[in-house]
Amino acid sequence: MTARITGLDAVDLRFPTSRELDGSDAMNEAPDYSAAYVVLRTDEGHSGHGFTFTIGRGNELALAAARVVGERAIGLPVDDVVHDLGGFARHLAADSQLRWLGPDKGTIHLGTAAVVNAAWDLAGKLAGKPVWKLLADMSPRQIVDLVDWRYLTDVLTPDDALEMLRRQESGRAEREAHLRRHGYPAYTTSAGWLGYDDAKLARLCREAVEAGWDSVKLKVGANLDDDVRRCRIAREILGPHRRLMIDANQTLGVPDAIRWAEALAGFDVWWFEEPTSPDDVLGHAAIAEAIAPVKVATGEHAHNVVMVKQFLAAGAIGICQIDACRLGGVNEAVAALLLAAAAGVPVCPHAGGVGLCELVQHLSMFDYVAVSGSMENRVVEYVDHLHEHFVDPVRMRGARYLVPETPGYSAEIRPGTLRRFTFPDGEVWRGVGSRT
Amino acid sequence: MTARITGLDAVDLRFPTSRELDGSDAMNEAPDYSAAYVVLRTDEGHSGHGFTFTIGRGNELALAAARVVGERAIGLPVDDVVHDLGGFARHLAADSQLRWLGPDKGTIHLGTAAVVNAAWDLAGKLAGKPVWKLLADMSPRQIVDLVDWRYLTDVLTPDDALEMLRRQESGRAEREAHLRRHGYPAYTTSAGWLGYDDAKLARLCREAVEAGWDSVKLKVGANLDDDVRRCRIAREILGPHRRLMIDANQTLGVPDAIRWAEALAGFDVWWFEEPTSPDDVLGHAAIAEAIAPVKVATGEHAHNVVMVKQFLAAGAIGICQIDACRLGGVNEAVAALLLAAAAGVPVCPHAGGVGLCELVQHLSMFDYVAVSGSMENRVVEYVDHLHEHFVDPVRMRGARYLVPETPGYSAEIRPGTLRRFTFPDGEVWRGVGSRT
Repeated sequence: MTARITGLDAVDLRFPTSRELDGSDAMNEAPDYSAAYVVLRTDEGHSGHGFTFTIGRGNELALAAARVVGERAIGLPVDDVVHDLGGFARHLAADSQLRWLGPDKGTIHLGTAAVVNAAWDLAGKLAGKPVWKLLADMSPRQIVDLVDWRYLTDVLTPDDALEMLRRQESGRAEREAHLRRHGYPAYTTSAGWLGYDDAKLARLCREAVEAGWDSVKLKVGANLDDDVRRCRIAREILGPHRRLMIDANQTLGVPDAIRWAEALAGFDVWWFEEPTSPDDVLGHAAIAEAIAPVKVATGEHAHNVVMVKQFLAAGAIGICQIDACRLGGVNEAVAALLLAAAAGVPVCPHAGGVGLCELVQHLSMFDYVAVSGSMENRVVEYVDHLHEHFVDPVRMRGARYLVPETPGYSAEIRPGTLRRFTFPDGEVWRGVGSRT
Repeated sequence: MTARITGLDAVDLRFPTSRELDGSDAMNEAPDYSAAYVVLRTDEGHSGHGFTFTIGRGNELALAAARVVGERAIGLPVDDVVHDLGGFARHLAADSQLRWLGPDKGTIHLGTAAVVNAAWDLAGKLAGKPVWKLLADMSPRQIVDLVDWRYLTDVLTPDDALEMLRRQESGRAEREAHLRRHGYPAYTTSAGWLGYDDAKLARLCREAVEAGWDSVKLKVGANLDDDVRRCRIAREILGPHRRLMIDANQTLGVPDAIRWAEALAGFDVWWFEEPTSPDDVLGHAAIAEAIAPVKVATGEHAHNVVMVKQFLAAGAIGICQIDACRLGGVNEAVAALLLAAAAGVPVCPHAGGVGLCELVQHLSMFDYVAVSGSMENRVVEYVDHLHEHFVDPVRMRGARYLVPETPGYSAEIRPGTLRRFTFPDGEVWRGVGSRT
């Protein structure tokens, strides 16, 4: 008997974060961090857990997208899926009628991400490995086969990627040992949400320093005078040797983004994140040229690898930020890692939200072991909330992620959380509704 | 009493076009042309009709998006909406939680388009004018105020747009008279769907010539030998003076797209449409440089005006194709017309599908009267199907669109069609399902 994928559960999971203004920034003033959460089930009783991340209203649309994409997984032999995850991801995206809704972007792509991520969780569990290790044990050929190369070969061919991966093969074991000993470096965003007042910002910056953080990110982009004052507070507390990053969350046009960067550069900013529209490759390139040596960072809203390819090719970003749930799951994230490594640009994944830290740690650790082979100028975002809802939450030691040891993609959410936070019937939502 | 918007009806409307392979191309092998159709209702009994277009499965997602975006319209005073359609469109897009699902792209943006288009239909009906005329009677300042300028000012400022529009003001009356007399030029795609065999292709090309068409488009991109043979057949029948365009519907990577164009250039191709990923601005720029003087055309899948801005700024397109339902409705289409006119690039809108011809005729006619002021190298796509379902269908004279005279956006669908083609309960769908 061939084991098959026989079912997909889908749960609308929302956390009422808007009640505390955690996660507030210039664009997203009151998010309710949410997950369109899916479970792929097999007829042998195994399950793969995955999700995509949204910030509240509309999570039902991402869930509906995951359902309709997920129908394409039902009935497939489990072996075919977990041993050809590249073919599986391409199969999910190949419905020509659904493709019209993107292509490869927006809600339908968020749904694809949830299902692809669930398949990786299943593959990790069946292999008895955390996903970073499942990836890091693949041959260069297997890694290359994960990627849909259709639109990438003008910049990177599969053969070039293969050669790049082979050059890193001999150092894999040593780097894996280093990773297991020292973990992977992180930075914190928890201090600098825009909704916090100056006193809270100062207190949180001081606490971050005391906790050992050496890279801190602040939200900016609503009011320049406020941002100057807030950056001054943060820089004073961080001292001259810690890193300060700023993030405008897409609020600015190109001319204003340049003005902002010029006004804040004096605070020794490492990167300026999401200065403008996430679709504006040429705009980012213009900003990057104007504000060097401050680096431009984006990618949290880069909706597919064709965008990542262009940001890199145009020299528009000095830091490549990928999102584990906006890209179409692990496969497209791997494509982004290959492109970035070929371009020599560090990948510093977007995290926070619901479970994004849990996912992206796997991607960066794989990148270190098998792709870029470097931790230099690389940090994974860390936000200290909602981890308690995960079966296998991130483990931090100081400002570093420790390697996940549990098989799978660390995506599984606790049953109690599913009961309490399901929208709109979970206990935290009954009779309450969203703040906004 | 202030009249208000009090309701939004939403209908999942699908036509079983896959049964005949109308609309087949290299990417979309068997579409069921569909509309996520909405009706905005006022408490005084007026209604505005709008839709977005999809090709079958997933239309329910676009409809759900239109519903959730449309909730933001309920309760607004009708006067505020129809006299500040720019403010209305910005209000619809300003839900920060929903924005996460795009931003400004994919399913949520398709939903926005349906609602914005419905509001324009309402505004036209209340003003007693077809939308092209409603637009063409606006002052330059009113036109500029329709646009969300946030991400555009690095390329075009509102003041520059104002000046450009003012230069065309004195000629408006003369051009409107010309338009009413002669209509607006069109081209046909009906001859060249990829699913047709050579004999049907030849017959349809001959019929097109006999019907007076002087611009014909062929689908290509699946097999180059086939495409060479099909282009040869078409060019022989068209003779040396009619225009031949080709359309690969995004199937090719950049190197293959260049190879295709080189193999087909001998058939004197005017434009090469959608050679590669619709997100790949730099890829299109590379293709454009390689295949000149054949022009690169794209825009049917350009998901917002930030993409249009870049295609123009990069010199990636010689023909700007806009889509009335993928862009966020009339307002964003107006922004695209302004950017294209400023760049000196002709706009030749994408049409066909369900009712896209009915919509885009208004946009091109407005462009001629008030924006670019020119019909040179400008043609609106025409496909001869599904017009019978519209209350105010396009009227053609030979290869030209005649001006719509009925108030509104020509978007209203006949009640009998709503009954028969509603999915899945209309009579054409009961017990049948989609072919694919």
